[in-house]
Amino acid sequence: MSSEVYKERRDRLISYMEKEGVRIGLVTSPTNVAYLTGFACNPHERFLALALDGANRATKLFVPLLDAMAAEEAAPGLAIVPISDVDDAYELLGGQMPATGVASIGVEKGTVSLAKAERLQAVYPGAGFADLEQAILDMRIVKSADEIGRIQRAVDIVEGVMGHAVSQVRVGMTELALAAEIERKMRALGADRPAFETIVLTGARTALPHGVPGQHEIRHGDFLLIDIGVQAGGYCSDITRTFVVGEASEAQRAIYDAVLAANEAGIEASAAGVPVSAVDAAARETIEKAGFGPLFTHRVGHGFGMDIHEQPSMSGANGTLLAPGMVFTVEPGVYDSVVGGVRIEDDVYIQDNGTAGVLTRYPKQLTVIAVEDL
Amino acid sequence: MSSEVYKERRDRLISYMEKEGVRIGLVTSPTNVAYLTGFACNPHERFLALALDGANRATKLFVPLLDAMAAEEAAPGLAIVPISDVDDAYELLGGQMPATGVASIGVEKGTVSLAKAERLQAVYPGAGFADLEQAILDMRIVKSADEIGRIQRAVDIVEGVMGHAVSQVRVGMTELALAAEIERKMRALGADRPAFETIVLTGARTALPHGVPGQHEIRHGDFLLIDIGVQAGGYCSDITRTFVVGEASEAQRAIYDAVLAANEAGIEASAAGVPVSAVDAAARETIEKAGFGPLFTHRVGHGFGMDIHEQPSMSGANGTLLAPGMVFTVEPGVYDSVVGGVRIEDDVYIQDNGTAGVLTRYPKQLTVIAVEDL
Repeated sequence: MSSEVYKERRDRLISYMEKEGVRIGLVTSPTNVAYLTGFACNPHERFLALALDGANRATKLFVPLLDAMAAEEAAPGLAIVPISDVDDAYELLGGQMPATGVASIGVEKGTVSLAKAERLQAVYPGAGFADLEQAILDMRIVKSADEIGRIQRAVDIVEGVMGHAVSQVRVGMTELALAAEIERKMRALGADRPAFETIVLTGARTALPHGVPGQHEIRHGDFLLIDIGVQAGGYCSDITRTFVVGEASEAQRAIYDAVLAANEAGIEASAAGVPVSAVDAAARETIEKAGFGPLFTHRVGHGFGMDIHEQPSMSGANGTLLAPGMVFTVEPGVYDSVVGGVRIEDDVYIQDNGTAGVLTRYPKQLTVIAVEDL
Repeated sequence: MSSEVYKERRDRLISYMEKEGVRIGLVTSPTNVAYLTGFACNPHERFLALALDGANRATKLFVPLLDAMAAEEAAPGLAIVPISDVDDAYELLGGQMPATGVASIGVEKGTVSLAKAERLQAVYPGAGFADLEQAILDMRIVKSADEIGRIQRAVDIVEGVMGHAVSQVRVGMTELALAAEIERKMRALGADRPAFETIVLTGARTALPHGVPGQHEIRHGDFLLIDIGVQAGGYCSDITRTFVVGEASEAQRAIYDAVLAANEAGIEASAAGVPVSAVDAAARETIEKAGFGPLFTHRVGHGFGMDIHEQPSMSGANGTLLAPGMVFTVEPGVYDSVVGGVRIEDDVYIQDNGTAGVLTRYPKQLTVIAVEDL
């Protein structure tokens, strides 16, 4: 994206600060810094901050000295302040962004630590804190066409990976071996990294919604659940498909049918102007009618974009109204500790005309993977 | 580790709370929760907290409903409070850990967000905050023999990966292709995951201390820098080696020799009772004498353990005295934007007798990788 896009985002944030009477703003979450500057980095425990002075609309990007060259390349025209490992970052901040009698410092309240807040109060004595995070998240929740294009690319990559994974399945293969092959393929297809820890689960272990792959072998007749995503060009994808290996039982089919119907009901309910809670409810009611209600133990999905979990949280308690540009997962699941679990997850967005578009296209009818024993 | 180890750690923390007059403690960083309970998870934006009541030494672990089963397995005997996606976690906390007139809530000030702090103040009105993080980090900075054994295992795995990586190098291969092969091998050798983003850089790009692998091809005569680590059994390793492909120039040898001498000087200087800053100084002086001082742009290393970056920060500004059980990297580097960069990183710990032990054993004399063109 051009540097104009980032400047426009910063201007919107400064206008928000002016409206709220926030003099100094400090954005420190690496993802928000990337959203507002184009410069993405992982500073670990080093100091990274985009500082904004509402009084003169000045902005400066404080980066670890190590990253200064990369920051200048990524954010041309933005004032960069490098910080070495022996500098006192807060002292530098006070010197570079002097301001006396500041009533209110804007920070990301959900991200900035209490320790950092105390250091800031020492730099700007007497100042209280105002939240900038929700304002930034409100900007990020609505994706531009360009951003949706990037998400689509991340989806395309992960769907290529899913197809490859299915072609590699063998009875006797471990979850970890398949996960390793999946992550190799992610890189090979152009992903920057997995968007989250690759989930490959077999048998009754598919009933662990947060299970991690282990030395468990794929067996004939088992469920095989694959929940994967990639980050590419700064944006994420997230897809889950559940397969049956060799041959499906009636009990497996009953669970699968209920989850598939719930997935479709959730997508069907998604539209501009509809509260998020209605999407959750549509999926949940479908599963309840099938008699599996208590086994659907999580919200129906989550927003995503630059981060794998963003707003809106697709929970039954969220009254936020869906709007064009919002991107989220619809991923109902039923987890039976004996038969196993099924989750079917698609990536959905609200189109300009208010209807739901589905970015994931990987088939979701029950697929029995034909296998030979190792 | 047995559940007794975790109980003993919690008891130490509660004793600290008692001494400091902290009534309610809330540990929310997933790594610290794992350190104190044995239960490791990534709650994403969901609520995870180990709550400790100093008055009756009661402890309860609040986990997302999804993770409740895994938590019960990992932390037998600990009271688990599952939180569903529609529960109000703070309301639950107040109900489960009721306490009136609390003067001081202990939190990890460097981790807990301002937003979370405000929610806590609503649960315990009038309470101020005390820091528990430093007390936990003070416990974590000294590793037990069992923990050092786990780190050694993570080192052994990553050294196997390094050897494999070198065997795969070909002229014309991209950085990304080698990185993908490295990460596949990590899994194959039993790592749970990379400890950080795998760094593979070639040519002048080796001068980017935080560069990420791209579509750049390995060429004859280039530096090849590989900085990798794995997490295995909850503990990390971290190693960097820099190779030359095909044939080394005099300029490359001069830089390499300076960095190797600095690496050895840093390790040599490491001993119980010595300030961290002296380790940095020993390495830095060596590089300065070789005339490359301005090109060594970062601290000499960092502590690590469960996290890839822990205390002590091995910087020239840190007066902390090294002590038995401390584990850290020694990784000087010289970054010349034309010739390229060299970094040589070892994992070092202070032994019970006060001398430094080196966990990494991968050879570090200048290695020219013999290659044929693709």
